[in-house]
Formats: sequence, C-alpha cells, structure tokens
Amino acid sequence: MDSLELIKPISKSSPTKIVLLVIDGLGGLPHPRTGKTELETADTPNLDQLVAEGVCGLIDPVSPGITPGSAPGHLALFGYDPVSCNIGRGVLEAIGVDFDLQREDVAARGNFCTVNEDGLVADRRAGRISTEKCAELCQRLDGSEIEGVKLIVCPVKEHRFITVFRGEGLASGVSDSDPQQTGLAPKEIAPLSLPAERMANITNQFIAQAKVILDKHYPANMILLRGFSKRPQFPTMADIYKLKAAAIATYPMYRGLAKLVGMDVLETGPTIEDEFETLKQYYTDYDFFFLHIKQPDSAGEDGDFDRKVKIIEQVDNALSRLISIGPEVIVVTADHSTPALLKGHSWHPVPVLLHSKWCRPDGVDKFSESACLLGGLGRFPATQVMPLAMANALKLAKFGA
Amino acid sequence: MDSLELIKPISKSSPTKIVLLVIDGLGGLPHPRTGKTELETADTPNLDQLVAEGVCGLIDPVSPGITPGSAPGHLALFGYDPVSCNIGRGVLEAIGVDFDLQREDVAARGNFCTVNEDGLVADRRAGRISTEKCAELCQRLDGSEIEGVKLIVCPVKEHRFITVFRGEGLASGVSDSDPQQTGLAPKEIAPLSLPAERMANITNQFIAQAKVILDKHYPANMILLRGFSKRPQFPTMADIYKLKAAAIATYPMYRGLAKLVGMDVLETGPTIEDEFETLKQYYTDYDFFFLHIKQPDSAGEDGDFDRKVKIIEQVDNALSRLISIGPEVIVVTADHSTPALLKGHSWHPVPVLLHSKWCRPDGVDKFSESACLLGGLGRFPATQVMPLAMANALKLAKFGA
Repeated sequence: MDSLELIKPISKSSPTKIVLLVIDGLGGLPHPRTGKTELETADTPNLDQLVAEGVCGLIDPVSPGITPGSAPGHLALFGYDPVSCNIGRGVLEAIGVDFDLQREDVAARGNFCTVNEDGLVADRRAGRISTEKCAELCQRLDGSEIEGVKLIVCPVKEHRFITVFRGEGLASGVSDSDPQQTGLAPKEIAPLSLPAERMANITNQFIAQAKVILDKHYPANMILLRGFSKRPQFPTMADIYKLKAAAIATYPMYRGLAKLVGMDVLETGPTIEDEFETLKQYYTDYDFFFLHIKQPDSAGEDGDFDRKVKIIEQVDNALSRLISIGPEVIVVTADHSTPALLKGHSWHPVPVLLHSKWCRPDGVDKFSESACLLGGLGRFPATQVMPLAMANALKLAKFGA
Repeated sequence: MDSLELIKPISKSSPTKIVLLVIDGLGGLPHPRTGKTELETADTPNLDQLVAEGVCGLIDPVSPGITPGSAPGHLALFGYDPVSCNIGRGVLEAIGVDFDLQREDVAARGNFCTVNEDGLVADRRAGRISTEKCAELCQRLDGSEIEGVKLIVCPVKEHRFITVFRGEGLASGVSDSDPQQTGLAPKEIAPLSLPAERMANITNQFIAQAKVILDKHYPANMILLRGFSKRPQFPTMADIYKLKAAAIATYPMYRGLAKLVGMDVLETGPTIEDEFETLKQYYTDYDFFFLHIKQPDSAGEDGDFDRKVKIIEQVDNALSRLISIGPEVIVVTADHSTPALLKGHSWHPVPVLLHSKWCRPDGVDKFSESACLLGGLGRFPATQVMPLAMANALKLAKFGA
C-alpha cells in the first residue's frame, strides 16, 4: 500500500474528470503471417489520434514475467499493490456471480467431483456436469445450518459453485479440501490457526453432509472446497484519491472488483456502444469512470485473432463518443495481455496511452505494442497509472516543500 | 535508505572528481506555438557536446505522477530516499532562512492570521501582511521563555514566520494548530504520543501569549503553527560515499539541504558565472561539487517561457568554464520539472546527462526531454543518479565476489 500512502495526503478533489478505459486482454503477440499483433492489425484512427496528442508506454500489471489474473490486473490499474492486495479465490468466485458478500461471510470455491468406492478422487470436475445439473445439486446442499452458521450454496458454471458460511466471528484461515490431483482422498479441512478451529469443524461437518446428500448423484458424488476467504477491506478510491468513482462493466467479476474499491456500479446495456452511452449519461455525476470492455479478452482466450482485431476496431469506433465529451484525462490500457496465439492471459507488458492537456507528448502517433516501446511514459508498473492520471487531472498537490 | 546501505560498504575514496550541476526546474512542456520545450528551444552547444560524448536519460525524483517539492527533489539526487527522508515543514522553513537549527531544537512553520470576534479564522494569511510588518510582529513574540524553553521567532516572508523551541528533551510529535481552512477556530495543540505532552503544553501557552500580544494588531491578530519537527539526522555523504563534498548555491534552502547531508557550503556571488567561478576556485579542495542554479525554476514559476530559455542558454555558456577544468564525471539534471506553462513544479520526468570517460555512449547528441527518451540511461529513479556518478568516477568497488 506504499503508493497509496504517498497519494492519500496529497490528493485533492477538483472538477476535472478522468476516464480509465480498460480494453481487457488488449496486448497481443504478432501473427506469424503478418508479424503484426491484434492491435497493430486493427485500424484504430481514434486511438491513434489520442496517442498522437498524448503520451504512451508499456505497463507491467504485476512484474515482468508474471501473468496476472483479472483481479490483480485490475487492482494494479486502480493503484492497489496487486500482490499484497491479492483476493482469496472464494471471494473472487462469489464476486463473479454477483453474490452480495457481507463483511463477516467466509466464501469458498467449490467443485463437484467424482470419488470412487475407496473414497479417492477419480475426477476433480465430475465430468464437467451441466450448469443446470450444478444448479439442481446446489439447491440440495443450500440452506442448512451448522452450529448457528448458515450455509449458502450457489451454482457458478458446470462443476463450479460457491459456498458461503454466514455467521458471527468466523475465521477464514482454514486449509483446502481439494487435493488438486486424482487418486487421493479429499483432505480434511484443518485450521491454520487456533481461532479457525470452529470454522474447520463446521466445514468438515458440511462436507460430511454433502457426501451423504450426493451419494446417489454419480458422477457428482462429492465436493471439494478451496480458497476460504473473507471480503477484503480495501481503502476506497474516495479515501485515497478523493474521487467520486463509477464503474461501467458488463461482467459481474469487474463490477465486483470495482465495488471492492468503493466505486458505484452503473446499470448498462450489453454492447460496447451501450457502455459508452452509459458513460455519457452519467458524465456529470462522477469525476472518475472505469469503463471495462470484456470482448477482446474473450476473443483472445478463444484464440480468435481476427475476432479480436474486429472488436478492437469496434471499441475504437465507439471511442469517438468519449472523445467528443472531452474529459480532461483519458487513459486507455488493459489489465493484461491475452494473445490469441496463446489462448489465454499472458505476461507481456500492456500498451497504455494517456491523453491530457498537460502530458509531455512523445512523437508516437500509433497505438501499438511496438510504438509504445518508444513512448514517453517508458515501461512502468501498472500501479503508477492512477498517480499519473491524477497528476494530469491536476488532482495531486506537491509532495514535500 | 536501501540504496545507501548498498553503496556504503562498496564506496571508496579516490582522486577523481564529480560535479552534480542542478539546473533547478529544468524540465518543461512544449510551447503550444512551436511544440518545443524550454530546453529544446534554447541553443545549448555545451550541453549538447556533453550529451554527445556522454549518456542520458530521464529521472523520476519521487515516482511517476508525483510532483516533488525542492527538498525531496534534492534529497533524491543526493541518493536519499525522498519519501522516508521527508523533512518536516518547520525544519524546511528554518533551513530556508538560514536559521542554524541545533540538534534538539523543535521548529514550526507559522502564519500570522486573522480571527474574528468569535475566535474563528477569517483569513489564514492575515491579508498577506508586508514582510516588514511580519518582522515587527515577530520581534514582539520573540525571546520569551516558558518552563525553561526558549522561544525564538523569526520572520520569513509576508505572513510567514518560524518558531523555534529551544530546550532540553523536547519531542516534536505534536499536532498542528492550523485548521487549514477559514471559519474554524485554531486547534489546540495535542501530543501525538506521551513524551510530547510537555511540548504540546508549552506550545499552547506560547499561542495563548501570542493571542494577547497580537490582540491590537488586526489583521495579524493571531498565529497558526504547523509542521513541528526536529532537524533530521541523515548519514552524511562522507559516511555513505566517502566524498569530500561541497555545495555552491545562492539560496539558503539549497545550502541548508546540502548541510543536512554534511556538505561544506562555499561562499559564492549572486550570478551564475560567480557560482562556476567559485567551483573553479575550490576545485582542488573537494572531490564532489553540488552546483545549484536557481533561476530557471523561478522563470518557470513565473510562467516566463522566454526567460527560462535565456537562462538555460546562460547556464550553457557558463558551463564552458567547467568543461575546461575537465572533472572525471559531470552530471547535469534538475530536482524536478517546472514548465512555464504550468507556472509551478510538475510531475514530468527530468532530463539527465552523465559525462565521463567510462560511460557507454548512446548516440544522443542533443540535450532535451525528447532526445533523453532515447538515452542509454533509460528512465529511472533519481536516487540512482549518485550510484551512477560514483561508478563512472571509479569510486565503487564490486558488490559481492
């Protein structure tokens, strides 16, 4: 939290506005045929105009070589140290299904799995049962109470679900039951410290109950739990930056991350154009907007180079609506790279552009991975994007006299 | 102090000489008409020669987006972490008027202010009274003694003054009386820890005295105190670098900062040429010179682009005297940027050049913000300037075997 501690005493409220546009998974790798990345292949006149008038560079969401998940990628962009602010898997999964976690809740990620007659795990994903089947089984497990603690079980997708333990004074520090490989028995949940003994005990009772309830539901005849965690208590963006911050995102995970740092989450439609329209509609009500575009990451994960190119072009087109409003600071970047060639998140540094009246332009006039190498911002940690945006919005006082 | 701890065991004394030329506020922003910064506009054949033979880059005094005050800007150049070495406001103000702070003194920054009949602050600066009036009022407050502690009150400028508490065993950890806004009463000084109770008590008595003494001096009918602090005990440059270091500066603030890290402060004349002449005169007596040129920062603060350009040219001209002496290492940089367009310090990275027989040249032959983007030093924290200068002066032994 070092950077936040530096910023908090010098941040100040002002009428200027900052828009942080996150094009999820934007960074890529060159197509073997053309030698150009997805972003370099796309025709992006608006992004190019912004970078020509602004300044650019490359960011590392965590550090060189580290492939970030969506949570650390976004927390870093919001200025929070992604390592010390790492979020438990249970909480993350709950956020991803828009579950309204309360302060004392303990959440765990669950898998329906298959165990054989000897009680050993034969398939950690129960043959990837359907989401419908998952919902039905969750309903059977949901709603019991153990030692005054309420058990809430919600389906996620296929074999995945969450369990939320709701009660007073629960500690989240218990081990996983998931042995992470087949051929072993599910592990007994153990407390990692004395205050977690009760939690471990309740969890083991819940697992025993589940085993009985699921007995006839082969292949989903057992559960595995992991990532027990509570909702983290981060300082809010209002605390740190004195910003009135709003999030526009179509996926629950990103809305949830925004809520964790105290942003208001705005209702929006499903398309990229809808999201920009929502920003326009609420423009006067906030001084910071986090606008999240999911589709490029999905195309990258699918390994669909051409679709990723088209979506980047679609974002570029929609961007004209934002440019016409003229916020004092526009930042365009991503939470990580998702090269179509790798079909997944990657460790490659992420292009970033910052457009403001007060930046020192760098002569770069194309927004791309290779052009950003020559950018005036250089290569820097993603946690410094917010201080730069704040500085360019003239929302930071001098440090020291 | 991490970097200093790394350097201290490997630094060694040698006959080579290092000159650190600080052109205060050197970095700028492009003029809207020409697209060139102050430095890019100036004709600087000597700086260009140095950079052509040397190596350059861009430094961040604190970190990206952070606008540094003069103290953190300079401490970083001297190699001291500007955040952990942040200096209290009271001490800084005392340094700025050449007040000889003793080790146990507690200094506070003071404002003469106006309070209304209800005792609420109506003007935090008492209508910016004249410096003469300030001196007169300081004399009235100066010299009292409370519980064996001597009170010293010195004028600074307009409504600003310093109070120094001189006595034994004083702790500086007390809160401010300045409410930082009008419409509120001056706050009671409170101890931030038990050992500071006596200090808080004495300060409150002093403020009560001042209120009585100033009663008939509307608009300066009250005082506000803040930034209580003691002179920090930094390791000296002799300790860390084994350098015999001298400072040449025309403003008390920079001489004071140099003293805090153990430099000798040399007498010098008021002009830029005088300062270079002083360096020449003492050249054989020291192996490190900090040469501070204030004028470019002042021109930047005044928003006078053209004057800043002219002063940079004047510095470049005077630089020939230094080049002719031929110190082994010349570093030219600044403590922060002061773009004339912003009329103040800014967060923009600062150009730096290093000239030595042992640098690895980078093909850059013009000293400017945009050229430094392509420099061999890259972009790096200002605290690493001293290790680089030391290395190029062959004053650092190998780290590890």
